[in-house]
Amino acid sequence: MVKRVAIIGAGVSGLTSIKCCLDEGLEPTCFERSDDIGGVWRFTEDVEDGRPSLYKSMVSNTCKEMSAFTDFPYPEDFPVFVSNSQVLEYLRMYAKHFGLLKHIQFKTTVISVRKCPDFSATGQWAIVTESNGKQESSVFDAVMVCIGYLSDPSLPLESFPGIETFQGKYFHSRYYKHPDVFEGKKVLVIGMGNSGVDIAIEASRVAEKVMISTGRGAWVISRVFDNGYPWDMVFLTRFMNVIRNSLPGPITTWLVAHRTSQWFDHANYGLIPKDRYILHVIREPVLNDELPGCIITGKITIKPSLKEIKENSVTFQNSPTEEPVDVIVFATGYKFSFPFLEESVVKVEKKQASLYKYIFPPHLEKPTLAVIGLIKPFGAVMPVVEIQARWVTRVFKGLCQLPPVSTMVEEINETKKNKIRWFGLSYDEILKTDCLVYIDELASLMGTKPNVLALLLKDPVLAMKIFFGPCTAYQYRLTGPGKWNGARHAILTQWDRTVKPTRTRVVAEPPNFCFNLLKLISLFVLFAAIFLGFK
Amino acid sequence: MVKRVAIIGAGVSGLTSIKCCLDEGLEPTCFERSDDIGGVWRFTEDVEDGRPSLYKSMVSNTCKEMSAFTDFPYPEDFPVFVSNSQVLEYLRMYAKHFGLLKHIQFKTTVISVRKCPDFSATGQWAIVTESNGKQESSVFDAVMVCIGYLSDPSLPLESFPGIETFQGKYFHSRYYKHPDVFEGKKVLVIGMGNSGVDIAIEASRVAEKVMISTGRGAWVISRVFDNGYPWDMVFLTRFMNVIRNSLPGPITTWLVAHRTSQWFDHANYGLIPKDRYILHVIREPVLNDELPGCIITGKITIKPSLKEIKENSVTFQNSPTEEPVDVIVFATGYKFSFPFLEESVVKVEKKQASLYKYIFPPHLEKPTLAVIGLIKPFGAVMPVVEIQARWVTRVFKGLCQLPPVSTMVEEINETKKNKIRWFGLSYDEILKTDCLVYIDELASLMGTKPNVLALLLKDPVLAMKIFFGPCTAYQYRLTGPGKWNGARHAILTQWDRTVKPTRTRVVAEPPNFCFNLLKLISLFVLFAAIFLGFK
Repeated sequence: MVKRVAIIGAGVSGLTSIKCCLDEGLEPTCFERSDDIGGVWRFTEDVEDGRPSLYKSMVSNTCKEMSAFTDFPYPEDFPVFVSNSQVLEYLRMYAKHFGLLKHIQFKTTVISVRKCPDFSATGQWAIVTESNGKQESSVFDAVMVCIGYLSDPSLPLESFPGIETFQGKYFHSRYYKHPDVFEGKKVLVIGMGNSGVDIAIEASRVAEKVMISTGRGAWVISRVFDNGYPWDMVFLTRFMNVIRNSLPGPITTWLVAHRTSQWFDHANYGLIPKDRYILHVIREPVLNDELPGCIITGKITIKPSLKEIKENSVTFQNSPTEEPVDVIVFATGYKFSFPFLEESVVKVEKKQASLYKYIFPPHLEKPTLAVIGLIKPFGAVMPVVEIQARWVTRVFKGLCQLPPVSTMVEEINETKKNKIRWFGLSYDEILKTDCLVYIDELASLMGTKPNVLALLLKDPVLAMKIFFGPCTAYQYRLTGPGKWNGARHAILTQWDRTVKPTRTRVVAEPPNFCFNLLKLISLFVLFAAIFLGFK
Repeated sequence: MVKRVAIIGAGVSGLTSIKCCLDEGLEPTCFERSDDIGGVWRFTEDVEDGRPSLYKSMVSNTCKEMSAFTDFPYPEDFPVFVSNSQVLEYLRMYAKHFGLLKHIQFKTTVISVRKCPDFSATGQWAIVTESNGKQESSVFDAVMVCIGYLSDPSLPLESFPGIETFQGKYFHSRYYKHPDVFEGKKVLVIGMGNSGVDIAIEASRVAEKVMISTGRGAWVISRVFDNGYPWDMVFLTRFMNVIRNSLPGPITTWLVAHRTSQWFDHANYGLIPKDRYILHVIREPVLNDELPGCIITGKITIKPSLKEIKENSVTFQNSPTEEPVDVIVFATGYKFSFPFLEESVVKVEKKQASLYKYIFPPHLEKPTLAVIGLIKPFGAVMPVVEIQARWVTRVFKGLCQLPPVSTMVEEINETKKNKIRWFGLSYDEILKTDCLVYIDELASLMGTKPNVLALLLKDPVLAMKIFFGPCTAYQYRLTGPGKWNGARHAILTQWDRTVKPTRTRVVAEPPNFCFNLLKLISLFVLFAAIFLGFK
């Protein structure tokens, strides 16, 4: 029977794992190598080894209602999209509210995690940690690995011929903190993920010239979506998901292309994805509000892949022009690994770890080791890692069961092949997944998935909000184990909390005179006008 | 017979006035008080007395095709919306191409412009200028006043109770150059014109907190308009103008409100204009790409009008909360005056100058004094001032006649009353006008207005582009005096020049498989999916 759980890392995944352990009556001990909580969300001026690194201006890509833990909404006066320091503040509030801090050992690095000799009977793990230069070993009933995948930069210099001759400065996006380094320079950003674009935009305000090189291109979505509502509250609804997942791949792709082009034509802006019509492949979109404005004002130029790097310039594919460059930023992403685990437990191959539901190594005799947060959902991370932790702690307790090894392996292989879904439940690059489908899956396993049809009879208002409204994570606290009484209220008031921080100047609504009649008349006038317009 | 023309100021209006004088065989002498051309478009680190002042990052609000002079398109590799330094570069090219520089006397200030004693017979003016401390007087046959209206800041401190007790820093937006002044500060910008918003956004990147106080609110339009095309190329077409000017006022207002709300709901963002449904009043919109993104991420907060300023804080209408403030920026606009003219020639009352067609003082015995560029078009300034200068030089030459004084006075008074039109041909605040209608009016007086109906038979492609396409100023060089042979080509290629600078990465179009059939099938699937979605 699992009691003592080791949690490695006190970032978002680690914190919610502690909380879920406590909820299930387990005894969590969290090892954090730095001196504070927050993981990727804690900005420091220096880049620390083995810790994710953030630039100062980073703002959350998902809005506060979609990013909140299931039973802990953001304060209503927080902005709709919070800055990194506000996410950290929220995490501190979460840690304080649920009394998580006392379970964390700071400045403690996990050196190794090994099966105990009697693992097949007990499922226990021997964990060696190091703190203040002293090593210590202890035995735990289970382990939750919450180290994320944003610590180890991927910098494939060998793919960039000529880089060794380059006389300018170059660095991985991980080492970017402030725009000062770009002052008056000619800057090239390689790679068009969210941080690549963010960095290019910051550079464009001080640099002489900024280019982004991208072979693939990307769809760009603005946080300010339809009618100014947060993109994820419009986009990530059960209703929209049903539509997206029911349509044939090319149609979905076409719909996405059509929708994003309403904002701006991606071909005219040099951004159009390369393989956009290949069946079932939709690139993960880039979230940015400012990119098209920067392109149309000439502050940023989009370029194809690099051909060659020279001493003080570069050339791009399909163009003979040499472009002078002083600084190159490699926004080429990250790789991940589990340095403290044996390969026999989790093996990372081709940037893939074979994990059941992205969580459990399938071959272990006992399911007492889980990886939390090795996932890059198209949406907020917090609800996903929380549901993972909730399910994992229930598996540890024996309240939920894993299927036989063969079933798990089969499902993993199936998932690897399966690139059909939205933004692909593919294993290409880092794991990405359709968060709604995935969360629902885990929630079903625990019995916390809301039953919309049943609700429709009992509580139609709530049912409609759940189906047509944004799929906020409070839904997974309405029913089943871990039910939270505030969940219904949180769902019904989610739009109020969204609008509150920006509705800071209210103007009295004027009386509505006979507008509809006027509109009708106008239609006629309109046609007459067009007709007469040529005169 | 007019021969020698004095032009006061070598900004956009002055330069095109020189050019138009040369075109008509007149002898222009341009007096410029600074040492260079460019007027408002020439950035200097220091604010110079009597000269407009610009902030470093200022980008044109109108795209290059709409901003070009009628016979001088921007180079095709210039960005779609050019920076202030690129506008200046363009003006230098214009000046060089048409040989304007040799007609300019730099560092020469006009001290007075007085009617010559025999004015009623000759229409001549005695102009006293000062250069290097030496005054000089000369006689000219005509005068073009090209001094603009952005030199004299309006800072009505008496309207802000408590400002005398304020311990922080405050200044008019004219004195803003770089965002450094806001580093770590709590900033309040008063006023929501284009520069107020631009300054707030720059501040938001370095300041601790930024608020914009606006009593009236404003509609905000992005440069990146439908499908990413420049707002003015979509918005300012003859077709759209016919629609706008034919519909009843409230419907036009409603359409504008509806269109701008597609981007974001102005009420939810605190921006909704106060008197938006009052018949026939549409506030001049603010052009900005980043404002909603800044509001939704909490970097900028919109506040109502100020109630009171205290030592280190302010309070706003309808709110008891005191907001701490370190820096106040008054983006409260400009006033204008003609210090070198006698009141009997042009009198400015309540920010209004009574000028026929915004150009000619109506009471003069001879029409030999014209004011160019005292107009704030909803659209680009350059085509408007150029058409003014073209018409004015033809009036000077006697090729176009002004109506009798009584007719002019009547029209001026009519215009003052007439607030019906789009963004009002009203005289409230600084002059604003519907540029298309106004340019057409002046062009008709000269016989250079294109006749779409006639063209439809002769050159239907061109006619369609003129009616449905963006109303670029090349149209006014197709026919009549000053006809330019490149005009037709410039119109037919205007979209190419627009797209070229951003289409810097081209991806081969994939083959289009049987999409239409798929789309049809999808519709059925869609309905089925929605139906089944509740399960």
